[in-house]
Formats: sequence, C-alpha cells, structure tokens
Amino acid sequence: MKKKFLNFITKLQDEITLSLENLDGEKKFNEDIWKRVEGGGGKTRILENGKIIEKAGVNISNVYGNLPKNLEDYFKVKNSKFFACGLSLVIHPKNPMVPAVHGNWRYFELYSSDGELKDRWFGGGQDLTPFYLKEEDAVHFHKVCKSVCDKYSPNFYKKYKEQCDSYFWNHHRNEARGIGGLFFDYLRPDFDNKIDDLFEFVSDFGNSFLNAYLPIVNKRKNYKYDSKEKLWQEIRRGRYVEFNLIHDKGTLFGLKTNGRIESILMSLPPTVKWIYDHKTEKNSEEEKLIKVLQKPIDWVT
Amino acid sequence: MKKKFLNFITKLQDEITLSLENLDGEKKFNEDIWKRVEGGGGKTRILENGKIIEKAGVNISNVYGNLPKNLEDYFKVKNSKFFACGLSLVIHPKNPMVPAVHGNWRYFELYSSDGELKDRWFGGGQDLTPFYLKEEDAVHFHKVCKSVCDKYSPNFYKKYKEQCDSYFWNHHRNEARGIGGLFFDYLRPDFDNKIDDLFEFVSDFGNSFLNAYLPIVNKRKNYKYDSKEKLWQEIRRGRYVEFNLIHDKGTLFGLKTNGRIESILMSLPPTVKWIYDHKTEKNSEEEKLIKVLQKPIDWVT
Repeated sequence: MKKKFLNFITKLQDEITLSLENLDGEKKFNEDIWKRVEGGGGKTRILENGKIIEKAGVNISNVYGNLPKNLEDYFKVKNSKFFACGLSLVIHPKNPMVPAVHGNWRYFELYSSDGELKDRWFGGGQDLTPFYLKEEDAVHFHKVCKSVCDKYSPNFYKKYKEQCDSYFWNHHRNEARGIGGLFFDYLRPDFDNKIDDLFEFVSDFGNSFLNAYLPIVNKRKNYKYDSKEKLWQEIRRGRYVEFNLIHDKGTLFGLKTNGRIESILMSLPPTVKWIYDHKTEKNSEEEKLIKVLQKPIDWVT
Repeated sequence: MKKKFLNFITKLQDEITLSLENLDGEKKFNEDIWKRVEGGGGKTRILENGKIIEKAGVNISNVYGNLPKNLEDYFKVKNSKFFACGLSLVIHPKNPMVPAVHGNWRYFELYSSDGELKDRWFGGGQDLTPFYLKEEDAVHFHKVCKSVCDKYSPNFYKKYKEQCDSYFWNHHRNEARGIGGLFFDYLRPDFDNKIDDLFEFVSDFGNSFLNAYLPIVNKRKNYKYDSKEKLWQEIRRGRYVEFNLIHDKGTLFGLKTNGRIESILMSLPPTVKWIYDHKTEKNSEEEKLIKVLQKPIDWVT
C-alpha cells in the first residue's frame, strides 16, 4: 500500500502541476527536492507570480522513522515507528473573483519498535475559499465531491462534508475558512471497506480535484476587478493565515515532525493585509460572503 | 495595587498615543472602548496609514471574573477568580529603515473562589524588530533597558535580557523575532522586593519606553528606501505574524480568555508577504540582520 499510494501521489502531482501550468500560460513550477535527516523527504513544486496564479504549491512528501516524542502523546503510543506520505496543495489565484483552494490526500502507518504494523489509515480533504461567492461555483465543487463519495458509500458525503465544515472553522472569528468540501482522517479498513477499497476512494477523490476546481477558475479568471476587491481578497487571506497558523493540525504536524519549513508554510498567501476592525458594507457582496461563512450551507442534497 | 496599576497604564496610554501622534504629524489615534461579557473591558487605540506610522495599536485592558476553565490547567489551580490588567503596544512604521517595536506591562491577581488573594505578579517587556540593523540603535534601546533595571537590581538586566531573547524566539525558523530588549513574567514580591518596589520598577520601565524608541524613529524616519527594501520589510513582517500566531503566549492568553479579537490581533502588521524560500544575498544588509537574529548579541555589558 505504501508503494501504491506513493505511486498515486507522484502521478497526481505531475498531472496537477501540468494542468496548472497550462491554465496559467505564463509561469512554470519550480521543483525542490529535499531530504529529511531522520528519514524520507519530499518534492516541493511552487509557481509564483503567474498570470492567473499568484502562488501555488503542489507538494508530495514521504517521511518515516521513529515517531517523534512530541507526537507520542498525540497518538497515545510509545516507542513507535511511523510512515507518512501525502500530497498537499494550495492555490492562491491573483484575481479575487477566483476562489483559493486547498487539497490533501495522505496515508499513514504506525509500527511497534520492532517494525510490526500496528495501525494504518488514510486522510484527506479539499476545501474552497472564495472571496466573492458565486453559489453555482460552490454547488459545482460540492457536486464533484458528492459524486465521488456516492460511488463508495451513501454516508461518506454527508459525514465528510460536515467534518470539513467543522475542521476548517476559524474558532476565534466564529466563521468558516471557506465554503467547505470534504475532510476525513483516520479512515481505517474495517468489515465494510478493505484497505484496497479505501485506496480506491481516496485516489478517486484525489483524481477528481481538477474537475472540481478548474471549471471554476476558467469561468472566473477573466472577470474584471478593482483595487477595493483586491484589498478584500488580501484581508480575507489574513483569515487564511490565522487558520493555518493557529488551528491547522497539518501545519502543526509538519512543525512537530521537523518537516521542511518552506514546504509546510508554502500554504501562506503571497500578499496579505490586516486592517483593524474592518467592517463590510450593508448588503454588499462582502457581507453576503461573511453570512455564509458564519453558517455553513448544504450546497447539494 | 489594582487601582495604582490601572492609573499608571491609563496615564501611560495617553502619554504614548499623544507622542506618537506628534511624531506622525498626519494621523490621529481612533479609540474603541469595549466591554468583556464576563467582566471588565478595555480601551483600544489604533492609528493607521499615517505618514510615519503604517499601523500602531496602544491598548489597555482590565479583565476579571472566574478564571476560564482552559486557563486552570495553565496556572495549576481550580475554581479561581482572577484580575488582569495591562498595556500592550505594537508599532509598525512605514519606512523599512525604522524598526517595529512591541511593549507590554501587566499586573495579575489570582483569588480563591471566595475572593481571598492567593497570588499576584507583574509581567512585562519590550523588544525591537529592525528590518535593517543599525548597531547603534540596538545599543541605544538596550542601554535604556539596562539603565532602568540597574536602578532596582544588578541582576535584572542580564536576566530579563536573556529571557527576552529566549521568549521572542521563532523556534520553527531558529531565529529571534528581533534584537530583543527585556522580558519578565511572574515577578512576585519577596524578601528583597516589596510589591511597591516592583511597581516602581515596572512603571519606571513603562515610562522609559518613549526614550528607548523615539530617538531611533527620529533618526531613521527620513531615510530613503526603495521597493526592494519595502519588500524585505514585508517578508520579515511575515515572521512577525508567524511568531505571534504560533508562539506568543500573550496572543493565546487573549484568545483563551475570550478577549476582544480585534484588540488582540491589532499586533499583526498592515501588509505582509510570503515568498517561497526567499534567500538573502551574500554580504548584503539583509544577510547581516539574519546572522544577528540567529545568534543574539550582548549589546551592552
């Protein structure tokens, strides 16, 4: 399964970066290959200052070895070894009419000190962060999520959509980061789903990412915008930073496993503004977004 | 002491905001008075988009009531009441040749559930964050810190300077936030220092802030700078955000005590950039700064 999953994310990284380069038309990804001293490494691909994409990171990593001490409490185990691999992506488009997006698909194994497999699970998710909300985009994104889920279980979509809303919640602001998508963790094989079935679901989900996101970008990328709308995007990007640095477990996991800082923090937006106590105008598009973020919506039923 | 300390920070807030308005010459502070549902409140003063100051917050707060559950573990007490008041300030100047600065002076009391005083202490600190390092500025800032400390104890400066270096440490970057200053916490009355002696020290320290910072601003505020230097300031401001949201206990304390979000996060810089894996040029001014941040210096001996 380790090989199979690594193979899947390696191919998916190639496919996504190629599509994004074609979409942008101006800039290409730069690649950094890095090694982790304690075992493993990764391949970080970044595209910056493109025509459509202001900043995008599409990274794969594959780390293993002794489970770091500060994660033993977290997983409630002792003297363990681990293996973790996954693909993480964040796209910050230039045009504020185009939503930002995040995706992650990962596989984890935990072993006893003598290398016996003790536990394994998949995790993953994708969520959309619009600055100006077009309902049809949210519906499209969620429809793709649902159509993948429904192939594997009638319960997956509802459950993982709700988990996404509660995971990407900016507690201190009492609002969602975006309009959600899917999120799951500790997805373990059981009586209903063998490990290979779960792999099919996770890889199918990863492979659907471009279908979920690209049509939205293509529809919105040529929309005109002014400096007020760009400012709103940069203020909202501030909330994105707050979520990632205060609440995001993926970021904290990276920092705790001595991950490569620049690969972990590639998720942070290129330009950000913090204005004291910024208020939206009544009945504005900005206010409409905030109202939806404060009370997540069922986009497809 | 509660009254005395509140009186001190109220006067200091007036003095500092007036001086900063005079310094800026263009913009004034706006004031927001807020109440905390569970008890207390504060006075937040913000100046934005000035001629010299891009963003400054000088806030006082005074909160009390039952100690929030999530702080009981932190202080290792149960069913307690608390009182906390303090002044917090952050100044982000427009010109990258002028350092940013942070200051905080606070007083805390802890009581049993029936209101009996169980513990009390002072905390405080100030630290300077240059983007282009002028050694004489660092020496001046530390000299003011030392001259206040030396009036009260021959040990204070060395001890609190070192605590500042280790507190404002961006662990995940392995570098300091800035060139330090002073930091102390849990400064309790003892045989050598009565509560009134400690108040004298803390208030003397707070009152020295303008002497420590203003001469530096006045010396640097008219320095010319270009877009490359402004960019460097915005990249370094990213590190400031990382410290405040990942490591700063003051920010986390505010979030945990249901403090006013906009008053807590006023510390975040107005404009920030995150560029993937930014590297400084060899023998540049930018590289010189990083080297000092990686290995804190004794500025005065």
